[in-house]
Amino acid sequence: MGKVRNVLFIMCDQLRADHLSCAGHPHLQTPAIDALAKKGVRFPRAYVQSGVCGPSRMSYYTGRYVFSHGATWNRVPLSLREKTIGDYLQPAGIRVALAGKTHVLPDAEGLERFGIEGGSALAALMRAGRFEELDRYDGHSPPGSESGYAAYLAEHGYTSNDPWSDYVIAADGPNGEKLSGWQMRHARLPARVAEEHSETAYMTREAMRFIDQMGDKPWFLHLSYVKPHWPYMAPAPYHAMYTAKDCLPLNRSEAELADQHPVLAAYRRQEESVSFSRPDASDTVRPTYMGLIRQIDDWLGRLFAHLERLGRLDDTLIFFTSDHGDFLGDHWLGEKEMFYEEALRVPFIVYDPDPAADATRGSVDTRFVEAIDVVPTTLAALGLPANEHLVEGRSLLPLLRGGDSETWREAVFAELDYSFREARLILGRKPRECRAMMVRTDRWKYVWWQDFRPMLFDLAADPREQRDLGGNDVYAHVRREMEGRLSAWLKGRKTRVTVDDAYVEARTATHKKHGIFFGVW
Amino acid sequence: MGKVRNVLFIMCDQLRADHLSCAGHPHLQTPAIDALAKKGVRFPRAYVQSGVCGPSRMSYYTGRYVFSHGATWNRVPLSLREKTIGDYLQPAGIRVALAGKTHVLPDAEGLERFGIEGGSALAALMRAGRFEELDRYDGHSPPGSESGYAAYLAEHGYTSNDPWSDYVIAADGPNGEKLSGWQMRHARLPARVAEEHSETAYMTREAMRFIDQMGDKPWFLHLSYVKPHWPYMAPAPYHAMYTAKDCLPLNRSEAELADQHPVLAAYRRQEESVSFSRPDASDTVRPTYMGLIRQIDDWLGRLFAHLERLGRLDDTLIFFTSDHGDFLGDHWLGEKEMFYEEALRVPFIVYDPDPAADATRGSVDTRFVEAIDVVPTTLAALGLPANEHLVEGRSLLPLLRGGDSETWREAVFAELDYSFREARLILGRKPRECRAMMVRTDRWKYVWWQDFRPMLFDLAADPREQRDLGGNDVYAHVRREMEGRLSAWLKGRKTRVTVDDAYVEARTATHKKHGIFFGVW
Repeated sequence: MGKVRNVLFIMCDQLRADHLSCAGHPHLQTPAIDALAKKGVRFPRAYVQSGVCGPSRMSYYTGRYVFSHGATWNRVPLSLREKTIGDYLQPAGIRVALAGKTHVLPDAEGLERFGIEGGSALAALMRAGRFEELDRYDGHSPPGSESGYAAYLAEHGYTSNDPWSDYVIAADGPNGEKLSGWQMRHARLPARVAEEHSETAYMTREAMRFIDQMGDKPWFLHLSYVKPHWPYMAPAPYHAMYTAKDCLPLNRSEAELADQHPVLAAYRRQEESVSFSRPDASDTVRPTYMGLIRQIDDWLGRLFAHLERLGRLDDTLIFFTSDHGDFLGDHWLGEKEMFYEEALRVPFIVYDPDPAADATRGSVDTRFVEAIDVVPTTLAALGLPANEHLVEGRSLLPLLRGGDSETWREAVFAELDYSFREARLILGRKPRECRAMMVRTDRWKYVWWQDFRPMLFDLAADPREQRDLGGNDVYAHVRREMEGRLSAWLKGRKTRVTVDDAYVEARTATHKKHGIFFGVW
Repeated sequence: MGKVRNVLFIMCDQLRADHLSCAGHPHLQTPAIDALAKKGVRFPRAYVQSGVCGPSRMSYYTGRYVFSHGATWNRVPLSLREKTIGDYLQPAGIRVALAGKTHVLPDAEGLERFGIEGGSALAALMRAGRFEELDRYDGHSPPGSESGYAAYLAEHGYTSNDPWSDYVIAADGPNGEKLSGWQMRHARLPARVAEEHSETAYMTREAMRFIDQMGDKPWFLHLSYVKPHWPYMAPAPYHAMYTAKDCLPLNRSEAELADQHPVLAAYRRQEESVSFSRPDASDTVRPTYMGLIRQIDDWLGRLFAHLERLGRLDDTLIFFTSDHGDFLGDHWLGEKEMFYEEALRVPFIVYDPDPAADATRGSVDTRFVEAIDVVPTTLAALGLPANEHLVEGRSLLPLLRGGDSETWREAVFAELDYSFREARLILGRKPRECRAMMVRTDRWKYVWWQDFRPMLFDLAADPREQRDLGGNDVYAHVRREMEGRLSAWLKGRKTRVTVDDAYVEARTATHKKHGIFFGVW
C-alpha cells in the first residue's frame, strides 16, 4: 500500500444503486465489487447530477453541476470552455485514457469559431472532452464509428455489415430468424455473441492492455462499460442466471397514478414507460439486467486480480460507480430521467491505497456524495491544485482518511432538461421551458418544475416515494425551506471561469501599483 | 427616414441618468442629446447589469447578465466562449468597429488552451471581444497602449513621454508646477490640453472618419467615450462652465450612517468614499463632471449634424447610454459599485429611423430597460436571428414602434462581485465570498448579499433610498417575495450555450430515426 499514483475510474451505464449484493440485493451476487467495497469505502447515498447519461457524465468529468457546465441533455455538446479531468491531469504528465463510453459530443460550432482544425491533435483532444481515446465506445453506435469493437467482431468470425445488431443484441428465434434485443420482450434470450466476445469482455481487456503498457508511468483510466444499459440482452450463461423470483419487488402502486404531476404524467405516456408498465415487462427485463451486472462483476474480478498481480493495487485509486440508475418499471416508468431514488442514486465505492485510509477500509459511509466529487477527490489524491474557482464538488479524501464530518454537505442536487423528449411535445412546451431542479436532504426531496407545481417527498415517512406532497398545503413551509436551499445553491454557481482565486488575491486593491489613483483627494 | 442599415452605439463612461437637461437637470444643458431624445424615445428607467465598467459593458456587448457571461469585475476577462455583438453581425457582412473604450480583457488562458496564435487575425478579434478596433482607448492607459491618441498628442506639440499625464489630466499650478487631475482637489483647474485635442474631441473625429469611409456600406460603430469618468479634469472652457450652485443637491444624510450594512460600511471606508465625504468634495468635482458632459454634448452635436449631412440619420439606429453612474458623494460614497439609483440607472435614448417608429418620437417611455437589451434590439432592427438561446435581453423595437406593454418585464437585475476591492479585505472575506444580486421592481429594491443581511428600499415612500429596510421585521414578506424573484431569475439563466432552440426542435423524440429503439416492447 502506498501513495496514489494512478486512478482507475470505473463506470457502469444505468446501474441502480440497489443492484449489488453489498448494497443488499438478496439474490444478485457481485463478489468482486463487494470485495472492492471491503478494501475501500462504500457510499450508499451517492447521487448523480442528472438522470441522463450525457449531463451526468459531464458533471463527473468536469466536477461541475449541469447548470454550470451547460450540457443539459444527451444531444447537447459540452462547451469547449469547460475543463475536464484531462485538462487538470495532462499538464502533470499523467495520461488520461478512455476505454468505453463518455457520451462527450464535440462542440463543433466552438471548434469552428476558434479555428481549431479537424485533423489536429488539439482538435482530437477537444472533440473527446480531453480524453485520449484508447477505444471510444458509446454503445448502440453505428457501424464505422470510432471503436475497434466492430473490427474485433469481424476478426472473430461475426461476419456482417453490422455485427453488433446481428450478433451482440440479436438472439436466434425458434424458426431460425434473428430476434432483436431492441424489443424488450426478447430480453430473456441469449445473445448470438459469445460471452468472451461481448462488449463487457472486450472493454475490460482493453483496460488491462493499457495498464500493462503503462508499467510504472502514471495514468488515469476511465473504464466505462455500456452495460447494463439497454438493449437488454445478455450472452450465455448470463441470460439465464436469474429468474423473475430473484428480482426486487416493483416499487409502484395505483395510488401513484392519481393526481399525477403533469410532467410525470407526460413521461408515463412515453413508449418506455408504457412498455415497462406491462405486467410482464419487469419479470422479462430484470433477470437479464441482473445477468449483465453479474457479467461485469466477473470481469471486474479478473481486472482486480490483474491489478494485484502487477502491484497496481498499491498505488491506484479506484472509483466504481454509474452514470444513473434505471426505473425498470418502478413508478410506472422506464428509463431514468425523473428524480426518484431509483434513477439518481448510484453505486459509489472508492478504494484508496494510501495507508492513511486504512482506518476506513470496509466501512459504509452514509454521508452524501455527488458525482462532481470524483474530480476534486482525484486532484487531492494526486496532490494537484484544487481549481476551486471551477470545481464545484468536494474531495472525499477527508472522509476516506478519517476527516471531520460536521462540515459535510447537507443536500445533493440534480437537474433535468426534458426539451428533447416527447414529454415536451405532449405538454406543448418550447425548448427553453423544460427545466427542473431537485434538492434532496436527509429527510426531504423537493423538485422545482418550470411553470408547474413542485414535487415533494418525505423520505423518512415514505422512503419509496409513493406520496407526492408537492400540492399539499400542510407542507408549504417545507417547500419554502427547500426552495431556499435551491436558491442558495444557484447563487453559488461558479461562473467566474477565466481567472482563479490566486489571481484575485494578487490583484485586490492594487490599482495604485498600476498607476491608477482614483478617489485621491 | 427608412430602414435600419447601420447602428451607432454611443456610450459615455460613468454618466449618471440625472445629468442631462432632458432628464431634468436644472442647470446642466445638453441640447444635442436632448434633440436626439426628441427624435427618438427616452427611457428614464434604464438599468445596467453591474455598477462597474467591465461587467456592465460585457452585458451590453453580449446581451447577457453578469451571472451568465461570468466577467464579474473589471479585471476578469470575458470568456472566449461568450459571443458578442461582433459574432452576430460580422457574418452578416456588417463591420463592427470600436472607437474608444470597451474594457474587454483578453482571455489569455483560453487563447492558449485553444491554440489561437498571438499574431493571427482571429486572435486579434478574440482579444478585442470581436470588435474591430479603429482606436481602442480605455482611458488612463499607459503610454504605448493601442490607441493612437498618444501619437496624436505628440504630433500636436504635447512633447512628453507621457503626454496624457502631463497635459490631458494636468493643470498648471500657481508656481509653475504641474498639478495632477488624479487629485480631485484640482478638479476646478483647466487641463493643459486644448479642447480640440482632448479625448472627447479626438474620439468623435475618429468616429466621423469611420462613418465617412464606410459610405453606403453597413456598419455598427461603438463610439465609447472615456468621459465624464475620473480623472475629473476638463479643458477650457468646460472647466469653468459650472459652479457649485449649479450642482444637484447631495443625496446623503447622517441617518444613513446609523446601523449601516456591513458591506456598505466597508465601501465607505475606501479612499474614494472618504474623499467624497469631505464637505468640499462635491462642490469641487461636480462642476467639472458637468463640464465634461457638456463637452460631450457639444461634440455629439457636431457628430449628429455630420450624420444628417451624410443622410445617415435616415438609416442609422442610434443608442445613447452609459455603462453606469457615479455617486459623487451621494450616500457618502464615491465611485459606483453599490446598488443605488445614482450608480445603476443610466441615460438611455434610442433613435430609430424607421417610419414605424414615427408615433413614438419625442416620447418618454417609463418601462424598464436593461443594458442587455442593446444586442437584441440591434439584431431585431437589422432583421438578424435573435439567438434566444444565448441572449437574455429583450428587443426594444416593440416599444419603439408602438408594441404591447402588458407583457413587458416587471423587474431589472444587477450584480456585484467585490472580491477585488479593499472592502473584501476590510471584511476579511475570500475571493468567492463577495457576491451580491439586486432586483428592482416598480416599488421595491432588494439586494441579496452573500453571508450578510439583505438590503431593501421602498422606492415609493423613499425614492432617495435613505432608509434601508433590510433588517426590519415588518418587511419580511416583501423580502421573501423579492427573494422569490431573484430565484426565478437565476433559474432562467441561459446556460445551454452550445446549441440553439432550432437544434432542439429538430432533435426532439427523433431517436428512432437514428436507429435507437429504446423502450420498445
